[in-house]
Amino acid sequence: MLQDTTSAAGGLEIGGILFPGIDQADFTGPFEVLSRLPNSQFHILARHLTPVRDGKGLVLIPEERFSDAPQMDLLLVPGGSGVNAVMQDAETLEFLRRQAVIARYVLSVCTGALVLGAAGLLKGHRATTHWASFHLLEYFGAIPTNARVVIDRKIVSTAGVTAGYDGALRVAALLRGELVAQEIQLFLEYSPEPPFNSGTPETAPPEVLRSTRDGLAPLLAERLKIIKHITTHKI
Amino acid sequence: MLQDTTSAAGGLEIGGILFPGIDQADFTGPFEVLSRLPNSQFHILARHLTPVRDGKGLVLIPEERFSDAPQMDLLLVPGGSGVNAVMQDAETLEFLRRQAVIARYVLSVCTGALVLGAAGLLKGHRATTHWASFHLLEYFGAIPTNARVVIDRKIVSTAGVTAGYDGALRVAALLRGELVAQEIQLFLEYSPEPPFNSGTPETAPPEVLRSTRDGLAPLLAERLKIIKHITTHKI
Repeated sequence: MLQDTTSAAGGLEIGGILFPGIDQADFTGPFEVLSRLPNSQFHILARHLTPVRDGKGLVLIPEERFSDAPQMDLLLVPGGSGVNAVMQDAETLEFLRRQAVIARYVLSVCTGALVLGAAGLLKGHRATTHWASFHLLEYFGAIPTNARVVIDRKIVSTAGVTAGYDGALRVAALLRGELVAQEIQLFLEYSPEPPFNSGTPETAPPEVLRSTRDGLAPLLAERLKIIKHITTHKI
Repeated sequence: MLQDTTSAAGGLEIGGILFPGIDQADFTGPFEVLSRLPNSQFHILARHLTPVRDGKGLVLIPEERFSDAPQMDLLLVPGGSGVNAVMQDAETLEFLRRQAVIARYVLSVCTGALVLGAAGLLKGHRATTHWASFHLLEYFGAIPTNARVVIDRKIVSTAGVTAGYDGALRVAALLRGELVAQEIQLFLEYSPEPPFNSGTPETAPPEVLRSTRDGLAPLLAERLKIIKHITTHKI
């Protein structure tokens, strides 16, 4: 992995967005990594400054409105059930488009990739997302790529939820070098020992895959309908 | 791993505590797992309802005071630089002692173990904590045990920060069975691919270990002083 040495000189502006129905771990995992980058500032961004409730009830507080945010070097876009609404929110999509022109990296975690897609940022880019939404990438003109972290030019996308750690460490290394990323990994004692081999649809027991898919079916049906609508009508 | 079948009938009360200077990932990782347990309620607890700022600036909102909390079946105790103060906070320690009598499990993540130690809950128990604080466990009469997750009777302790995922999934399986834990693991796509082999002091490059240790030295010197004081004077 090569360090992007053009960055070493200046301070980094890093922004992460919050929205209602976010999956908090898509944000908090990468925050844990990226907020430790030397010579950088992490901006916790949202449309409004109203506290934001995650899909399971954890409340996070945004600190800066999109409209007040400076240009970011790195923008973190998490996912969660709330992306169904965010994909249709013109203000958020416009903010992402504007930031992405100059940002050095845009990091989507989990279904945050669908928000990038809705903003038109995945066209012709290899990308990944949560396994259950993987089939939706193609609607945005992305090149669906089944990997835990996919880096294509400035778009870095990761698989579901916990893949945010792997993506954030990769980006940390790109921005500040491998030694810095390794220090962060050591501090976070990131030497995982998952107790089961159930972390992907390929390795999970069939009954586990079936029940998990069944649980997600209504959300995904709604999501497909929304994506078909917005990709046809170009909001 | 055996399921604790006595639990299958009733709803689970799960509580996690917040405090200033928490390392938010110690809380948010296990929250991500445990808030998905069926037939359960997750209580976000703190001394006061004042928003709590984590060591890197993320603000989380407690929803219930210690004094209003019902008896928990599972109590999550995160760590962070703020444990230096929490180890000396009589109200928090008393809350933990009282809850631990009846709770089926107490799960410490990272230096949350030191808070359990200060509450007297580690005496004669095998336990682990963040690698940089591992040498401090013995002051509390614990049996320091170098593993990612240590389960000794009702005390479940994990290594640093990201080990909370492994510990929470183990507890999820104990409380609700392996199929449920595997479903959660699949939903979270927890099939980690750390980009470097730097997640433990044994595997990190020597210069990475040295600089990370140096960065933590002042906090640890203060911590040792506090622990010597409280274990001598029995607060």
